[in-house]
Amino acid sequence: MSISLKDIGSAVLDTQYAVRGPIVARAQELERSGRTIIYCNIGNPQALGQKPLSWTRRILALCEYPDLATLSPGAFPADAVDAARKLLSGSKHGFGAYSESKGLRFIRDAVAAFITRRDGIESDPESIYLTDGASKGVQAALRLLLASPEDGIMIPIPQYPLYSATITMYQGRQVGYYLDEEHDWMLSRDLLEDALEKAKKAGTTTKAIVVINPGNPTGSVLDADNVRMIIGFAKEHGLAILADEVYQDNIYREGARFESFAKAMVALREKDVSLFSFHSTSKGFLGECGQRGGYMELRNVPADVSAQVLKMQSVSLCSNLPGQATLYSLVTPPPEGGPSRAEYERERGDILDELKARAVLIADGLNAIPGFRCNAVAGAMYAFPRFDLPTGMSDEGWCMALLEKTGICVVPGSGFGQLPGTAHFRATILPPRDQLATMVSSIAAFHAGQH
Amino acid sequence: MSISLKDIGSAVLDTQYAVRGPIVARAQELERSGRTIIYCNIGNPQALGQKPLSWTRRILALCEYPDLATLSPGAFPADAVDAARKLLSGSKHGFGAYSESKGLRFIRDAVAAFITRRDGIESDPESIYLTDGASKGVQAALRLLLASPEDGIMIPIPQYPLYSATITMYQGRQVGYYLDEEHDWMLSRDLLEDALEKAKKAGTTTKAIVVINPGNPTGSVLDADNVRMIIGFAKEHGLAILADEVYQDNIYREGARFESFAKAMVALREKDVSLFSFHSTSKGFLGECGQRGGYMELRNVPADVSAQVLKMQSVSLCSNLPGQATLYSLVTPPPEGGPSRAEYERERGDILDELKARAVLIADGLNAIPGFRCNAVAGAMYAFPRFDLPTGMSDEGWCMALLEKTGICVVPGSGFGQLPGTAHFRATILPPRDQLATMVSSIAAFHAGQH
Repeated sequence: MSISLKDIGSAVLDTQYAVRGPIVARAQELERSGRTIIYCNIGNPQALGQKPLSWTRRILALCEYPDLATLSPGAFPADAVDAARKLLSGSKHGFGAYSESKGLRFIRDAVAAFITRRDGIESDPESIYLTDGASKGVQAALRLLLASPEDGIMIPIPQYPLYSATITMYQGRQVGYYLDEEHDWMLSRDLLEDALEKAKKAGTTTKAIVVINPGNPTGSVLDADNVRMIIGFAKEHGLAILADEVYQDNIYREGARFESFAKAMVALREKDVSLFSFHSTSKGFLGECGQRGGYMELRNVPADVSAQVLKMQSVSLCSNLPGQATLYSLVTPPPEGGPSRAEYERERGDILDELKARAVLIADGLNAIPGFRCNAVAGAMYAFPRFDLPTGMSDEGWCMALLEKTGICVVPGSGFGQLPGTAHFRATILPPRDQLATMVSSIAAFHAGQH
Repeated sequence: MSISLKDIGSAVLDTQYAVRGPIVARAQELERSGRTIIYCNIGNPQALGQKPLSWTRRILALCEYPDLATLSPGAFPADAVDAARKLLSGSKHGFGAYSESKGLRFIRDAVAAFITRRDGIESDPESIYLTDGASKGVQAALRLLLASPEDGIMIPIPQYPLYSATITMYQGRQVGYYLDEEHDWMLSRDLLEDALEKAKKAGTTTKAIVVINPGNPTGSVLDADNVRMIIGFAKEHGLAILADEVYQDNIYREGARFESFAKAMVALREKDVSLFSFHSTSKGFLGECGQRGGYMELRNVPADVSAQVLKMQSVSLCSNLPGQATLYSLVTPPPEGGPSRAEYERERGDILDELKARAVLIADGLNAIPGFRCNAVAGAMYAFPRFDLPTGMSDEGWCMALLEKTGICVVPGSGFGQLPGTAHFRATILPPRDQLATMVSSIAAFHAGQH
């Protein structure tokens, strides 16, 4: 054949993506052969029973088939019809036409208004780019920044493997910095300086630092001091910040609140540090993974660089319009006092309350297993427990054996990175509570059997 | 600021994408200031008034909001309800969950059945990858093949700039081959051999040839002999073929028919030439550009290479589900005898008849302008006329002046590539007939005024 594996370059061959790697492939194989699998490998809420918000889905249905508003007047609350009507009129041509490369201006306006409501700061709709999920925004930012094979990006250890995979694909260097497991996975200035210094010695030109807050896979929520420390570090070393904030609505720990990098930058009157921040419709309380909606906001990025971002976006034309509209429904809740509002609040509240209960259940359950220690799941959708690995076993081997024995599919810590000599896995908190309880006890029984 | 233009690498800076370049930016500026613009720069049918197919949109609305089927029983024909029900049950979790990285197996089965119906050949659903439009499939194939800076990809001159832009972005080499304008833009074996020989002398390792059929921007439709010649050429030189077949339903010339590379390969019992073929929901009679649906089919690609394709797909999780379902509606028309069938055939027929009339109108109109010569628009959605450039003017300058004077937005031939010393532009055939007639006479008057 005209292609063989030797035609494929290292950029592709070296790319790793554990979240959908060999353990998941084996889980699918087992499922096809009749086994029941609990998929805890990926944050895919609706695959584990979470219902979509009616507000979102009514708007999408009305935009896909605008005649519905007149065909079925009783089926839609007036505020949903109104939102869809505004969206269609703001789009001019509906879901079937390419939008501007950045996404519909009407929706970018709504995103800017959302940021202003959330943080009390201004946001420029021309600095907002609508993307197919957050992943495509992250990839665009990394593509922009990785100019030569010596360029590096600081990424947390553990990290979400989108970062490592994309940096490899664009042939840059990963500059890993450890998160401090002893202190709720916060970032430590010392550990950041260590990592940067080491990269410098290796001849790496570090361009940016990736921060995931709330943390994936760690479940941490950074406080305001930590966010400000990171901005100070980035400023001192001339780094850009990539702020992955897709779990901003998933905060469970009492008293914790989401502190955006944009807000902290404005509070610090920081004009030097370039910021790319990312949000998504896939997480939070929407859990609309399949619609692929998201955005990237740029701050302190010069106009000639933004023009390059726009050009790259334009090569693949625009993000998908249903995803753009899903994002609109996220940043524009039904109006207070409108017919959809009470239902919206109930649906949203039920989802977040349930996730909070699961976050506690899984962390407590794992901590009760001998040899396990798990930080509180303060936010996001994952537990990342540390556990004692039986001698001679890799964490990947342990996870594969767990799958074979119990049908539970988790991702080994090595897929995210971890301190040498430690072992972890990532499990989503998304299965229903009774399944989570079974899961925890199965893990306990399995682990006991391994020693 | 922590980023400046000097941080951006040549892979990004050198990328060009004329279809959404400075002329389009200027058109948008003029529009905002109140001018009427005729956008002929891009194949975006619904932005120019084409209506979506009811079949497609009913399925999408029902999948976004499944309660509709019971809430508004009268609003939906039974076959649309049935198609949506099958789709939802095939997806297991609806539009809100990530699908398999390749896309829903249920839809890949439907795509394989479509290929079998179209070509009378077998197709393996495991070799089909659902993508956000065809663009993402093309980019995946190019990413796979471009392993080193010496690797080259043969692309037609003129070509659709997605190819040149992506090859630049992945830092490969463009190996341009001329299409034969004197012979309806067919491919010529001599011109292919010339191009390949020249690349060899420049130290380029040519990996694949891109063929766009029907042609963008040329409007050509390749005959079976031409397709077989290309396969023979690829075989002799060990090249893969990237077959961009997104305009396969847009054939206007009497007697012409679409000849897929897959069908020709099977007819030739060709097992050596690796083939990547691409299709989209954005063109044809659907014109659903904003939904971003499409697929890539692999043939004669070894399993270890396919595994790499799958891994790359998995990094950005999956293509958007509404786009996947739009593709389902394209490859699965309403059943014969069902309540949606007659309406579907009428809507489809009207769109294709109208496009055919416009294809003739624009080519005839342009050919009547002194100094213009335009091949018949046998297929696709574009005219690519050759015209006499006034002395001292670039084609870009001519197109910009045309925009300023008339509000007509076309893309200069230099954005696609052309024989040195010739000038062209690309204009879509999509505006309604009365607008097309005005457009042709405005171009004639403008051109006369330039000499």
